[in-house]
Amino acid sequence: MQLHHRFFCPHSRFVRLILAERGVEVELIEERPWERREEFLRLNPEGTTPILTVGSGLAIPGSEIIAAYFDELDRPETDRRLMPQGAIARVEVRRLIHWFNVKFFEEVSGPLVAEKIDKRFMAPEHGGGAPDTNALRAARANIRYHIRYIGWLAARNDWLAGPELSYADLVAAAHLSVADYLGEVPWNDDETAKDWYARVKSRPAFRPLLADRVVGTPASATYADLDF
Amino acid sequence: MQLHHRFFCPHSRFVRLILAERGVEVELIEERPWERREEFLRLNPEGTTPILTVGSGLAIPGSEIIAAYFDELDRPETDRRLMPQGAIARVEVRRLIHWFNVKFFEEVSGPLVAEKIDKRFMAPEHGGGAPDTNALRAARANIRYHIRYIGWLAARNDWLAGPELSYADLVAAAHLSVADYLGEVPWNDDETAKDWYARVKSRPAFRPLLADRVVGTPASATYADLDF
Repeated sequence: MQLHHRFFCPHSRFVRLILAERGVEVELIEERPWERREEFLRLNPEGTTPILTVGSGLAIPGSEIIAAYFDELDRPETDRRLMPQGAIARVEVRRLIHWFNVKFFEEVSGPLVAEKIDKRFMAPEHGGGAPDTNALRAARANIRYHIRYIGWLAARNDWLAGPELSYADLVAAAHLSVADYLGEVPWNDDETAKDWYARVKSRPAFRPLLADRVVGTPASATYADLDF
Repeated sequence: MQLHHRFFCPHSRFVRLILAERGVEVELIEERPWERREEFLRLNPEGTTPILTVGSGLAIPGSEIIAAYFDELDRPETDRRLMPQGAIARVEVRRLIHWFNVKFFEEVSGPLVAEKIDKRFMAPEHGGGAPDTNALRAARANIRYHIRYIGWLAARNDWLAGPELSYADLVAAAHLSVADYLGEVPWNDDETAKDWYARVKSRPAFRPLLADRVVGTPASATYADLDF
């Protein structure tokens, strides 16, 4: 398998966590989607990361479709499923995947990564340049209510969507992790959210993400620290 | 079941088509999401249409999660499934659901409905007012390549994602239908796309959508005509 990804794309990170939790080996191929590389667009006309290629000819675009693909490989009796069994619980996991992949991404992780990382690697004609301070200010305000929401979810159950670890925890942690790298998570705002994140972060599947670095932007002090 | 929807929200229309194809009766409750009605936000904190409530206490937000919910109600041996069986075919249907719900919506159906319908019902503080002609011009340029893409997909197979009608056809037709209502589909650009749409449109499940009207914006001449 090959994963076309970016190291600080939260949707790509969600897929790396899924693969690692399942013990699946994958070759990582870094993309700069804004360069619209032809081979990449053939794999996914939408031109977005991540894309997972499986065997010959199957290219699975997007973290939600990749998550559904692996869920359907499992037989219900298999252990280590990242989706619960019941219809109501499955709706809740999917709701949270959408919440983080769309809402948290639009309001927090998307602008943080675009302004503080991607723009430094983009040519001016692709949108590169200095960060937009208004976008950063909005993201910093938005993350505060998201952290409280995560704390509220984690207080209801052991994990975000129920009593077991699920895709909901992986997607939330993937998006939070890029904000954490950039030192943008107000951890002291919510102890419950912090405790939940410490539990996800200490899983072996998380370790490769904690080793990621981007040139010119050092990781925050909390990023790779399991007892932050 | 109750569907919280808007008549010209393409995501809501996709769900109405799913329910009608399955022969499921539903009570329609119209929402104006921008008014952020409290009961509506309790059902879905994202505050977007559609939301389907099923029995007591289960609120399913978003057309993709609603589609997945019904798919999982089916046993594989059941007829009238709107998802194919094989993993590769399922990836393709999901890819197209995402393509229309995200990309076509961002580039075409979203701006057309926002500018030509929703803004007329919004108070100025919610963004109401005159249509943005730049947004309309962009949507009119974008729909031309989407129509060619639909024609290309329909030429490969009988239906957009394969030899059988699937969610892919319903989602594409739902998004196209709002553009068609507004007279914004260049049908003469692609005969194959037009033939495919005529086939979807003539299904009994489509009939209720063809009766929808919005005050002050009459339907285009092609909208309710099965031989347009």
